[in-house]
Amino acid sequence: MLSTLVDKIFPTYSFHVIINNRIFISRGQKRLTEKNRITVGIYGHQYTIVGEDSANHIRQVASLVDEKMREIKSKNPSLDTSKLAVLTAVNAVHDYLKLKEKAEILEKQLQHLKD
Amino acid sequence: MLSTLVDKIFPTYSFHVIINNRIFISRGQKRLTEKNRITVGIYGHQYTIVGEDSANHIRQVASLVDEKMREIKSKNPSLDTSKLAVLTAVNAVHDYLKLKEKAEILEKQLQHLKD
Repeated sequence: MLSTLVDKIFPTYSFHVIINNRIFISRGQKRLTEKNRITVGIYGHQYTIVGEDSANHIRQVASLVDEKMREIKSKNPSLDTSKLAVLTAVNAVHDYLKLKEKAEILEKQLQHLKD
Repeated sequence: MLSTLVDKIFPTYSFHVIINNRIFISRGQKRLTEKNRITVGIYGHQYTIVGEDSANHIRQVASLVDEKMREIKSKNPSLDTSKLAVLTAVNAVHDYLKLKEKAEILEKQLQHLKD
């Protein structure tokens, strides 16, 4: 049931996160496989992240989110955790879109050289 | 003073966000230029995002964060906003790192073809 829901809604599988023993699916196509189950700390909270990605990748993701939240907090001490996390997400999506533009240019250059 | 701090701490400039008339710097190298000052709604809160990026880019970033938060919330109604935003950030950083791997491969392929 869970994986069927996930199959319908999310285009690609990445991983799901367990908070207080409840599972929160981020997105996915594949059935849940608990290949890597890693507990990480992000901004003072424990999250168990389960996914097909390597433990190193999952730890790196968690570490970068934690680091970015602390970095923004240190400059804006009055920012509450929720807005801090939104701002962290805003930054990450900004970085993603900028990198996507770069990757698209690289792909075009590569295609041009291959033609 | 603000820009000096920013210069020291953040490696590259992206944009800063104003919440309740207070400015929250995400990161930056350049002085603040209020070239584009866009108010966007992310998950029921208003954020004024100021940056050198185009208004379209800023709106796209905000829209993607809002969309992802609502998507995760719809599947996990009991998730509080703070954890929801952290999970959104986790997803965005995951996507970023995966795309970074892809971009690095493209760069290597391009370099190989040029050599």
